[in-house]
Amino acid sequence: MNQRYEDDAFAREARKLLGARGFTTDAVTMAPWLTDWRGRYSGKARALASPASTREVSDLVALCARHGVPIVAQGGNSGMSGGATPDASGVALLLSLRRMTAIRRLDAAAGQAVCEAGVILETLHQAAAEVGLRFPLTLGGKGSATIGGLVATNAGGTQVLRHGTMRAQVLGLEAVLADGSVLDLLAPLKKDNRGFDLQQLFIGSEGTLGIVCAATLRLLPAIAARCTAWVGLKGLEEAERLLHAFECAAPDLLEGFEVLPDQALAAVLSHDRGTRAPLAGPHAWHALVELASPDGEQALDRIVEEVLAEAIERGWAADAAVAANERQAQAFWRLRDGISAAQRALGPAMQHDIAVPAGRMAAFVAAAVPEIERRFPGTRAIAFGHLGDGNVHFHVLAPPGGQRGAWEVGEGATISTYVHDLVTAWQGTISAEHGVGQMKRDELVRTADPVRLAVLASVKQALDPRGLLNPGKLIDPAALAPPPGSP
Amino acid sequence: MNQRYEDDAFAREARKLLGARGFTTDAVTMAPWLTDWRGRYSGKARALASPASTREVSDLVALCARHGVPIVAQGGNSGMSGGATPDASGVALLLSLRRMTAIRRLDAAAGQAVCEAGVILETLHQAAAEVGLRFPLTLGGKGSATIGGLVATNAGGTQVLRHGTMRAQVLGLEAVLADGSVLDLLAPLKKDNRGFDLQQLFIGSEGTLGIVCAATLRLLPAIAARCTAWVGLKGLEEAERLLHAFECAAPDLLEGFEVLPDQALAAVLSHDRGTRAPLAGPHAWHALVELASPDGEQALDRIVEEVLAEAIERGWAADAAVAANERQAQAFWRLRDGISAAQRALGPAMQHDIAVPAGRMAAFVAAAVPEIERRFPGTRAIAFGHLGDGNVHFHVLAPPGGQRGAWEVGEGATISTYVHDLVTAWQGTISAEHGVGQMKRDELVRTADPVRLAVLASVKQALDPRGLLNPGKLIDPAALAPPPGSP
Repeated sequence: MNQRYEDDAFAREARKLLGARGFTTDAVTMAPWLTDWRGRYSGKARALASPASTREVSDLVALCARHGVPIVAQGGNSGMSGGATPDASGVALLLSLRRMTAIRRLDAAAGQAVCEAGVILETLHQAAAEVGLRFPLTLGGKGSATIGGLVATNAGGTQVLRHGTMRAQVLGLEAVLADGSVLDLLAPLKKDNRGFDLQQLFIGSEGTLGIVCAATLRLLPAIAARCTAWVGLKGLEEAERLLHAFECAAPDLLEGFEVLPDQALAAVLSHDRGTRAPLAGPHAWHALVELASPDGEQALDRIVEEVLAEAIERGWAADAAVAANERQAQAFWRLRDGISAAQRALGPAMQHDIAVPAGRMAAFVAAAVPEIERRFPGTRAIAFGHLGDGNVHFHVLAPPGGQRGAWEVGEGATISTYVHDLVTAWQGTISAEHGVGQMKRDELVRTADPVRLAVLASVKQALDPRGLLNPGKLIDPAALAPPPGSP
Repeated sequence: MNQRYEDDAFAREARKLLGARGFTTDAVTMAPWLTDWRGRYSGKARALASPASTREVSDLVALCARHGVPIVAQGGNSGMSGGATPDASGVALLLSLRRMTAIRRLDAAAGQAVCEAGVILETLHQAAAEVGLRFPLTLGGKGSATIGGLVATNAGGTQVLRHGTMRAQVLGLEAVLADGSVLDLLAPLKKDNRGFDLQQLFIGSEGTLGIVCAATLRLLPAIAARCTAWVGLKGLEEAERLLHAFECAAPDLLEGFEVLPDQALAAVLSHDRGTRAPLAGPHAWHALVELASPDGEQALDRIVEEVLAEAIERGWAADAAVAANERQAQAFWRLRDGISAAQRALGPAMQHDIAVPAGRMAAFVAAAVPEIERRFPGTRAIAFGHLGDGNVHFHVLAPPGGQRGAWEVGEGATISTYVHDLVTAWQGTISAEHGVGQMKRDELVRTADPVRLAVLASVKQALDPRGLLNPGKLIDPAALAPPPGSP
């Protein structure tokens, strides 16, 4: 594979720069990183580079610029949109940040850690815990996801409601630009008005504007008290009212507010034999609510019970169970975390990662679900997830007998188009937390306001005029109209 | 004044577009807006345009693009860096947003307000209070500062410690770009990963990338309980320890942590006869601490007293007084708010709006003050302000006999250069909250990392290729090296 590149001038110089450990064209070594973790995207690369320092990334990118070599940056290879998988041409260099694993500094008093791009999320969690702190972002892929990838994709997760996405955790960053120069914004200034914020540009840019090599991240006091509850609800509108009640009663304590419909719970219960229903009766919808505090003496149970008592009295909530201990809380979360696997077992489905303006999700789901099931007979639409963020995972299951592989590219694709149009009409987003990558690049062009696209493209063009950084991902300036303000 | 422009083709078209109320070349009408509120910067304009809607701004900017007319956007004309004052050429159009005063929507349940650019900050405070909410940003100029100006300058103030700068309050915005197209990002999505965040670009861009016409802002529950304390301290290092103790004990309640040295307090006490010292004895430093909560039953006094008792026991704090009522709290704040006026009465001074990484301010001040007073004999250096943000206002008073006007441009300028070099060496910023405007444009070029400047310039160039948006402010791409990644 890629023999034609093995001994070209670029490869010789790169090998000299990075050594044998940092540069390879060996097909077997490269193979695991050329397909994304879900097996949806595969590509080829001329070589795999694994620089060990920002200096090496800088030199390597400068070398790529001289040779016109495109660069696909990759962290844990656990992204959701194929953003870190090269295309089929084999022209691009796969640039892994996985060797940059240093936590350069951990300042417990200041609540800050400077992490290199290759630090695994779980490693940071552990390092923070060792000094009585926490890094307040977590997600399913925490054992593989890297800080660089989390920054580059502005990752979300289940604690966004309280603590925000990755954007809110980044106090500073260091990125290598398209020409190899190093933009050092690591110093964590709480206030800095020396022009518009450049750091924000690189967060969520998916490797298309620069290579994030390190980030200064905020750490918070560790959680000392937690209260988890499972609530049975008549509908999603009642869930929004309950969410609002919790937001008013405990604005600084509410860490999670996840919802799922009855059929999602039923699927988990039948798929995972180690689970059982938290409440006795059936309920149309369920909410998983979690409060947490760094103050071990804070009476979270009392707050939760008060809000729930009022919600039941007012008829918003039908029934509720407060976890009596950590084991029970984990059992509640196991139900939530089991949804995706249980859904997959039900047959082919189109998955959508959508958000609408907060407070409108109940209305959106009430409008969208019956409309989709009417238009596409036999399908079932299911929304679940982060109601507190106005973000749900919206799955549409194939009709009985739908063939895996064939259905997705046929009726499934038509359904996705319909869902994306609908969410766009509701002023929502077709990518709430998973990013654009290669998966949604064309859908972004199809659904987004042309003015937004033009600005994205003009910034991309400005920072990467030759289009060498993660080509084919997120936005392709060449495929769009000229940027605003062009003569 | 500017008669040559009165009847040119641009003026005729603009008048037709905006009507007599929206367009004038009358010198008397324009005069108040051609000098900044502190009288430091004066300029000329070919006309004053006051569009009444985003549609009108869009048409006007497109007209300017066709005629090559530069645009200086202006809100309340209460900026600190001359960013809204045109240059002396008289070529530019002064574009006032003051007629766009609608609060388009105020959704109390969602805690959101969509404000047009010309809404006065105090008006928004009142509108929020009427529905039991608050807009959590305030500053001295609240009676004149507009939402558009606050967004464009990423304004700070005295509540940043808890609630962040303007950047943290903006959930969405609407901006008119250099070609007149409207970028509508008003829909407030808590999660949206359709590419890097464009909204962030316009916040703090000082009218150089586009004209902010409206913003969706977050509102929080109104304050129901407050506790204000005055603390006497041995030094600034002790103040940082006290700050850290409050951050640990009440991370979600600490709204303000301001510091001032003894000589600043003495100046206020002698300048403002209606004030008196809050504590009996003399102290080298003073801190003004405020906790606030939307929960009226929260025992803030108890928390404050506990932290202070421990601080006194450990020797960090020497003495403290907790305000017994609102009147006393206001008396404490009067001392803090009176510093600038009292300092001005002491003679000419160079003022610096600086920040260093949080936790390093005490060390910076301890190093900088004696060094400056040694290098510039007879001067006195005073730091005061937002220690909680790592941001102080750093004033250097002229030696006795220093002549106002002459001293500032002579020794004063040398001192500012020295201060800016020093803060840069400490990885700090020469503009923490006041922005760059015309005041610090050259200092930014002199002190900033060339890579940062190149990125600023390339983004500016991309969004405003003809340089028509607020020319001469913040960054001038023509004056810099080519952007990174250029062939």
